[in-house]
Amino acid sequence: MEQVAHSDPRKGLPVDRRRFSRNIIAALGAASIGPWPVSASGRRNPAAPGVDGDRLNGWITELSRFGRRSDGGIDRVAFSDADLEGREYVRALMSEAGLDVTMDPVGNLLGLRAGSDSRLPPLLFGSHIDSVPAGGNFDGPVGSLGAIEVVRALEAAGIQTRHPLEVVVFVNEEGGKTGSRAMAGVLGPGDLDRVTASGFTVGEGIRRLGGDPDRLGAMVRTPGSVAGYLELHIEQGAVLEQEGLEIGVVEGIVGIRRWNAVIRGFANHAGTTPMDQRRDAMLGAADLVHTVNRVALSMPGSQVATVGRIAATPGAPNVIPGEVRLSIEIRDLAMETIQRVFDEIATGATEIAASRDLEIELDEFYLSAAAPSDERFRQWVEAAAEEAGLSHRRMPSGAGHDAQSVAHFAPMGMIFIPSQEGISHSPLEFTRPEHIEAGANVLLGALLRADQSLS
Amino acid sequence: MEQVAHSDPRKGLPVDRRRFSRNIIAALGAASIGPWPVSASGRRNPAAPGVDGDRLNGWITELSRFGRRSDGGIDRVAFSDADLEGREYVRALMSEAGLDVTMDPVGNLLGLRAGSDSRLPPLLFGSHIDSVPAGGNFDGPVGSLGAIEVVRALEAAGIQTRHPLEVVVFVNEEGGKTGSRAMAGVLGPGDLDRVTASGFTVGEGIRRLGGDPDRLGAMVRTPGSVAGYLELHIEQGAVLEQEGLEIGVVEGIVGIRRWNAVIRGFANHAGTTPMDQRRDAMLGAADLVHTVNRVALSMPGSQVATVGRIAATPGAPNVIPGEVRLSIEIRDLAMETIQRVFDEIATGATEIAASRDLEIELDEFYLSAAAPSDERFRQWVEAAAEEAGLSHRRMPSGAGHDAQSVAHFAPMGMIFIPSQEGISHSPLEFTRPEHIEAGANVLLGALLRADQSLS
Repeated sequence: MEQVAHSDPRKGLPVDRRRFSRNIIAALGAASIGPWPVSASGRRNPAAPGVDGDRLNGWITELSRFGRRSDGGIDRVAFSDADLEGREYVRALMSEAGLDVTMDPVGNLLGLRAGSDSRLPPLLFGSHIDSVPAGGNFDGPVGSLGAIEVVRALEAAGIQTRHPLEVVVFVNEEGGKTGSRAMAGVLGPGDLDRVTASGFTVGEGIRRLGGDPDRLGAMVRTPGSVAGYLELHIEQGAVLEQEGLEIGVVEGIVGIRRWNAVIRGFANHAGTTPMDQRRDAMLGAADLVHTVNRVALSMPGSQVATVGRIAATPGAPNVIPGEVRLSIEIRDLAMETIQRVFDEIATGATEIAASRDLEIELDEFYLSAAAPSDERFRQWVEAAAEEAGLSHRRMPSGAGHDAQSVAHFAPMGMIFIPSQEGISHSPLEFTRPEHIEAGANVLLGALLRADQSLS
Repeated sequence: MEQVAHSDPRKGLPVDRRRFSRNIIAALGAASIGPWPVSASGRRNPAAPGVDGDRLNGWITELSRFGRRSDGGIDRVAFSDADLEGREYVRALMSEAGLDVTMDPVGNLLGLRAGSDSRLPPLLFGSHIDSVPAGGNFDGPVGSLGAIEVVRALEAAGIQTRHPLEVVVFVNEEGGKTGSRAMAGVLGPGDLDRVTASGFTVGEGIRRLGGDPDRLGAMVRTPGSVAGYLELHIEQGAVLEQEGLEIGVVEGIVGIRRWNAVIRGFANHAGTTPMDQRRDAMLGAADLVHTVNRVALSMPGSQVATVGRIAATPGAPNVIPGEVRLSIEIRDLAMETIQRVFDEIATGATEIAASRDLEIELDEFYLSAAAPSDERFRQWVEAAAEEAGLSHRRMPSGAGHDAQSVAHFAPMGMIFIPSQEGISHSPLEFTRPEHIEAGANVLLGALLRADQSLS
């Protein structure tokens, strides 16, 4: 692979990341555990260990063979043949990295590396490798293979951490975070019966991986059993790219609530009903769409509110809709903010109904609680990014991640790297090799800081 | 049936319609053709012939047996067994009324009554008896049976008209005005292959009626071959009821144009895309819905514009819609008004697209030209309503009717009577017996005026 050089938009200086990484790996060849060395310049530490970006990006390319589509996208839905083959490839990489590889009852791949203090619980890090149908090869693999590369970098640098290190490749993230939820003990019995995109139920899928859905109780991690969790992931949004930043310091995974809105008027003949005699549900729906948007924009903060689905009944061009149904979704890191946004939308809906002689009903059908990251992890990620001379900002994760499940039993942090044009869950999903390398280096740096500080 | 008395909202006086009708039938017993006699009071003519409202409403009740649903509605779609049985019932009524009943190749039932001047073309009048699925028993039957009752009233009054009278029961009005369009010679070959709600194609259906789809060319009426056409029909809207009026003087059948609007933004993750980085097609769609409504309301006149159908793609609660499609329908008596409304909507769409960074495409997919009624027919209907002491107003027909097809080859007029709550194409469709009687009397009065004036 060719040398990658790009400019750091924050400082306007060219940074040769690969050479930088190589240098720090070489310099750290003899380093062992101990307080993190800070360079005299204060911005870069030539003595810090670093990942091999070429190797890591090569693995990502290799993994893309499993489930590749003719359009360049990836069909590697959990429990499919492509998923099984991809897992075998990753399992081999884990073994090559010197990890002691096992599988838990739900099918999560676990790779253990001993720490110097056997009394300490493990530091867990990783991600997933399954994809959505017609997805990309970066959502998941970057964090899973990045974790393995971090272990390789530690091996190369001869570093042993205090905590045991545990690399994890979670099962079926895209289809409901099965692996991480099983680890948190929050997988319900009904979850096993759900049919996945593979055609198998979750229970059948677990057996296909060689797991045992009847033994999930045995794998539950309780608070204290894991020192902390760190996950590298693509942003799946365009915030970093638009601001020219390299690293997102994830403040947590947003809470999500969803409602079905039913706007009821009176269905009538579009030809025989004068404009002033209509009770047109479509007009109320249009009002509500605007209200949802206006309320989300009216408050400071990063809350989002979306109307993604809409349908009119009876739904013919020549009938005034008697009913329109639409979805309202609100996300924010703070559940109170979600409630405040909803309350304002509900007030607006009442006004719309009154002014247009309609009925509007709002029924919640989905709730996912917010999972804030641990403030210490945010700071370690920031310090590691600073160390590597990488620009960064704090941001929420608008999408769900395995880290959200892990938050049930351990402090967690996440690192985002840019998604090109913010696109993901699409064959067009792409993240630049240098950003992947940078993200893995921050994962490494933050992990070492966590290892130093956590008990 | 009991005597029906209700108050005339225009004059605030009770009117006993049935007694009124009986009186004028009796008084006209010996009358023959001649200039229309006007009473001294100028408002009512005790010497005018009148229909038997009880008999007419009795027939309507009888006809409702064919295709009756358990919810009180009617399933008598064209070409169904219920339609065939209903037609046999109506054919018998036509014969009983002394009409010479025949069927043309498309299956229209025709009943001829000789006029006194054999050189004159016939005066055509009637409607249809087929229903939409789950429809009512007034949309069509009122005009068809009303026409037969008019003939009975003329028989009873011993009146022979100058023109031959031709009662028509058109085939498959609800499924595309098959009978009247065949008569106008505007039925395309493709129309015969369309599958109707009966399960039969139009061609198969015509054969079921005993018609011959290969001989449709032989039945085409050319301009001049019919003196004029008059149709009594329920309003299918609530204008008359809301204004407390009894008779609508139809100015014509509105033109209709329909467009598909495609609003294109960029589909994106509803969690990871900040509010200010969205190109949300749903917001553009909401703007467009409001624009369609605002433009239709902003001009004087009775034009209507409707968004009846809407769908978002991909249509998930957690995805910002990349595309929303919706239908726009505009109706008015004047095609120029439709164009003006559309031009304003299109201008609005351009502004929406520019302000929200979206693309909006408007593609026309349907056009039905307006069919104005003949001004003389409007005046004859008004005069007949005045004569009978019935309140009335001019109004467009927002719905399509067989009269629209007939307008291709003859001057036409239409008479509307109130629809309860404006409901039709529904089991809830209802028109009061006294309104039906009033409408048939106006049909009779207007027909006699047309007979006097038309050559």
